[in-house]
Amino acid sequence: MKQEPGKAAPPAPPGAGGTAVVLLSGGLDSATAAAWARREGYRLAALSLDYGQRHRCELDCARAVAAALGIADHVILPVDLAAFGGSALVDDAIAVPKDRSDEAIGRGIPVTYVPARNTVFLALALAMAETRGADAVVIGVNAIDYSGYPDCRPEFIAAFSRLASLATKAGVEGRPLEILTPLAALTKAEIIRLGLDLGLDYGLTSSCYDPDAAGRPCGGCDSCRLRAAGFQAAGAIDPRAAPRG
Amino acid sequence: MKQEPGKAAPPAPPGAGGTAVVLLSGGLDSATAAAWARREGYRLAALSLDYGQRHRCELDCARAVAAALGIADHVILPVDLAAFGGSALVDDAIAVPKDRSDEAIGRGIPVTYVPARNTVFLALALAMAETRGADAVVIGVNAIDYSGYPDCRPEFIAAFSRLASLATKAGVEGRPLEILTPLAALTKAEIIRLGLDLGLDYGLTSSCYDPDAAGRPCGGCDSCRLRAAGFQAAGAIDPRAAPRG
Repeated sequence: MKQEPGKAAPPAPPGAGGTAVVLLSGGLDSATAAAWARREGYRLAALSLDYGQRHRCELDCARAVAAALGIADHVILPVDLAAFGGSALVDDAIAVPKDRSDEAIGRGIPVTYVPARNTVFLALALAMAETRGADAVVIGVNAIDYSGYPDCRPEFIAAFSRLASLATKAGVEGRPLEILTPLAALTKAEIIRLGLDLGLDYGLTSSCYDPDAAGRPCGGCDSCRLRAAGFQAAGAIDPRAAPRG
Repeated sequence: MKQEPGKAAPPAPPGAGGTAVVLLSGGLDSATAAAWARREGYRLAALSLDYGQRHRCELDCARAVAAALGIADHVILPVDLAAFGGSALVDDAIAVPKDRSDEAIGRGIPVTYVPARNTVFLALALAMAETRGADAVVIGVNAIDYSGYPDCRPEFIAAFSRLASLATKAGVEGRPLEILTPLAALTKAEIIRLGLDLGLDYGLTSSCYDPDAAGRPCGGCDSCRLRAAGFQAAGAIDPRAAPRG
């Protein structure tokens, strides 16, 4: 960028000039993480996984979020985790739990857990990052998620960062990839406030584990309930609010 | 199994009663690793990845090896790593190097390196292992491979083991998955001798990076050259020997 004479260049943000691959699910968290990375100055590429999820309308949301953030390099990769079975999110034989109490949501590993999902997603993001010569992978794991899913916890992310430094050509050559988790320490309400500050349109995102054919949220699954509580605590209106019975 | 009176039961092998998911590429190494795990007493399931590799005949070999070892639970999962590009093994724009010297083969990271391949493969094997309640994942990385590919080195495997213990429901509940690398410390000749001792038919396996349409090896790529040298050092005949010009 050409500087005006006599005017100092503004300080470069941490990510300025770097490239980051963002894991974009179409949900609220990953969209916020992507908007954050853009503000930090990263050039963004996005990876969405079509993994046989029930909530396939998320992929349309991922496309819409990528377009809204100006991300032209967006790969939607089919990986049929449903071939393995074992989760309510990919296996039609397992029901998505509805209307659980807040206490129940926070306890144990839910049946909506997809086996090794974040390990698989981060591994594929690492592969894409390596082909793009990227400096970072951005994933929207957060404080709410890691109460239930083992592969959302900070110690899991730290172990993946260590792995990434050993797994790649760039890492071996002294340019390890950073795994960025900007939402790790935020509550759902704080995430929503961050996204609204960044001008993100949450109407483009979908969080429901069990939407109807038109992509409308069910309002009763854990994810709908966490989203509704988050918007309420943030004092904001959800543009994609679930109708409640 | 019913024991004859007065006759002690033979000592159980380490893997007896356990289940292992074997990454089966159709190549020589993974077939040997699978045969080893079967001898150790593991019930085997196999995972092969259809990742857009040029040497797609490997998948037919993987099917043949699985059948020969009596592995009924064999998943062939499409994962289009070619969508990312960046390797001679998946990208038609990059030529497979031929007739390199032994010194050149051992030096640096070759263009046949597939970005983050073993990270992706192990992550998917971890997902499959979790749905099967498996105790171990078996991968045929070896001493020859880790001279060139960063994700074949023992420190990479150790980092993945650490990740696996944090990534899964079973790991969190105190039953971490083992990542077994029975070939890690073996030369190609030692691997071949092990497989022959285990009764493995290497005619079922394919190692070539650039076979012809009928699946016949080129004889000139690094993998063909390492295989030929391995059989020669083992004092054995390769039933799938490459014709040499």
